[in-house]
Amino acid sequence: MIKLTLENLEDFTRGTAFLGTGGGGDPYIGKLMLKHQLELGKKIEIITQNEISDDIFACNVLSMGAPTVFVEKVPNGPTTLHALREVEKIIGKKFNAIMPIEAGGVNATLPLVVSALSGLPVIDADGMGRAFPELQMVTYNVGDVDINPIVAINDFYETAIFNARNSSSGEWLARAVCVRMGGICEMACYPMTAKQIKETAIHGTIKLSFDIGEIIQRARNEKTDPVDAVISYMAKSNPPRFGKVLFVGKIDDLIRETVNGFTRGKLFLKSLDSSDELLVEFQNEFSYAKLNNEKLLAMVPDLICALDSETGEPITTDGLRYGQRIKIVAISAAPIMRSKKALDLFGPRAFGLDFDYTPLEEI
Amino acid sequence: MIKLTLENLEDFTRGTAFLGTGGGGDPYIGKLMLKHQLELGKKIEIITQNEISDDIFACNVLSMGAPTVFVEKVPNGPTTLHALREVEKIIGKKFNAIMPIEAGGVNATLPLVVSALSGLPVIDADGMGRAFPELQMVTYNVGDVDINPIVAINDFYETAIFNARNSSSGEWLARAVCVRMGGICEMACYPMTAKQIKETAIHGTIKLSFDIGEIIQRARNEKTDPVDAVISYMAKSNPPRFGKVLFVGKIDDLIRETVNGFTRGKLFLKSLDSSDELLVEFQNEFSYAKLNNEKLLAMVPDLICALDSETGEPITTDGLRYGQRIKIVAISAAPIMRSKKALDLFGPRAFGLDFDYTPLEEI
Repeated sequence: MIKLTLENLEDFTRGTAFLGTGGGGDPYIGKLMLKHQLELGKKIEIITQNEISDDIFACNVLSMGAPTVFVEKVPNGPTTLHALREVEKIIGKKFNAIMPIEAGGVNATLPLVVSALSGLPVIDADGMGRAFPELQMVTYNVGDVDINPIVAINDFYETAIFNARNSSSGEWLARAVCVRMGGICEMACYPMTAKQIKETAIHGTIKLSFDIGEIIQRARNEKTDPVDAVISYMAKSNPPRFGKVLFVGKIDDLIRETVNGFTRGKLFLKSLDSSDELLVEFQNEFSYAKLNNEKLLAMVPDLICALDSETGEPITTDGLRYGQRIKIVAISAAPIMRSKKALDLFGPRAFGLDFDYTPLEEI
Repeated sequence: MIKLTLENLEDFTRGTAFLGTGGGGDPYIGKLMLKHQLELGKKIEIITQNEISDDIFACNVLSMGAPTVFVEKVPNGPTTLHALREVEKIIGKKFNAIMPIEAGGVNATLPLVVSALSGLPVIDADGMGRAFPELQMVTYNVGDVDINPIVAINDFYETAIFNARNSSSGEWLARAVCVRMGGICEMACYPMTAKQIKETAIHGTIKLSFDIGEIIQRARNEKTDPVDAVISYMAKSNPPRFGKVLFVGKIDDLIRETVNGFTRGKLFLKSLDSSDELLVEFQNEFSYAKLNNEKLLAMVPDLICALDSETGEPITTDGLRYGQRIKIVAISAAPIMRSKKALDLFGPRAFGLDFDYTPLEEI
């Protein structure tokens, strides 16, 4: 059992920003939403892998949209809960738990807000083990979990309910409504049984956020390097996750657009002590890093994170600014995310990139 | 009781093309769909105004999209019926009749196809008395008919079900899904009671299509002017509808785009015997006509129709071609469509035009 408190809240949201790999929106938003619930005395129960009983029936909840929009038009807990209730009405069955669809960004905190509002516990597992920009980019699709019904809702409680022929089509249709709802909407989809959760989700990712956030804070307190601390921690996890610093530099240029419901752009970094340059491209999240316009250093689904050079604080793509000094860190994705079927869902080609996946540790 | 037969089918679809005021897609599509049903021996019952019993509960069905798309990706009867059945499931009540949302174009024929497939009768009334491009542009909104639930469906039987805060928002959200469904989708919406139909619909518009189509054909047979014949007929209807020929000329230029789920463009005509020029702008349907870039000759909601100079055959905006010789005819809209509240829904400003409505007969 993991317990969220006012004391460990900041560690948690820092960890979600790390796993957000640039996407998922400003962690400050998620922190404020959860702080409010905790101050009201609400309890948030988090169920870990070996506590998942066979009768668990959980719904994924999330906010869809461009992180650049999230900071002005923040995700809405009550409408998200309403979306979950709409799914219940359609399938004629009550949920007894909530799933985060992704482990990074505001979507890692929103399910906990819905938990506080509803009293339903949250499963410590998700479909991405990080953040990805699109609905179909979940390990649930390595198994055969049905995304339907997909409920999208806005602040007016207007709903759009989709029954799509597959999750990619669900993403395609729902994204258009998301844009028309103002670039953000709340959603509920992928209703899942205990068996489906056990077989297709990535487990322990809420715990991982707490740990990463805490390790960064501890390193700061101990005046050691927070980035090194995270890489060491990941290497000792089970299974071990390989990590390395790809680049240290300052932001030399930044192209960022909010387009078709995504934040898309390119981050250009210059080394502080050589002529090296790094390009990191993003669609909400960082998708690949390329050195001197020729050598790929890391790519999806491996995690690429931008951290403040001094404090190790994760920086989201909507928070990038010219002149910032940052470290780009990469961490290998969980093994379940590297199968052929998984790479079809969220490998480089799923992002429209013209190269195949090479694991981080082989580069 | 009106009876559709293989003999009067062409008159009917010609009339719907006239009331389509340029929009609604090629009438040939509607004709083929109905011909197929009639050849299968299907009966289509059409209920006229004084036959509407108090227990009537009807659903509007339509195809949303750009007429330029309709000719390649034709409207689908079975999916439209499925959309109607989805509305029944949501509201928990069966329909016993079908309503056309508009009197023009393919959407005037599609409800008859659904009637043939389901056995449900069609009400001889609609919400536009012509064709309009957007969902909220119906006289139902002069009363307070709820557009919800709105069901959109495509050829894969994928559905999007909207619960919108008003009909304009329903249009805004559904149009985005329509575009992602390939520029066309079938829909069911505006469930209506007998009372609502009696109070807010425009009655007798199916009959009107039969009459207009027949009058054009008869004038051809009798070697008289089909356009004059239609204008005379409209003047004698109850209430009388004023009509006139605005312009006779040939198409000198044509700008036509399929954009955001609509066919938008400008038609430029040159007179055959003077230097006069006419501009007719369209959003699916013709919205206004302007002489020599200065004088407005007609505007929505009055009907503007393009007819072949010789045969009087209505020409839809997707069928316009350089060099065609056409007559532009205008007919005054039904009185119910000229109230302040109605003009807010489908007067010039509702189309983003920067002028107020002037009735055709006052110009």
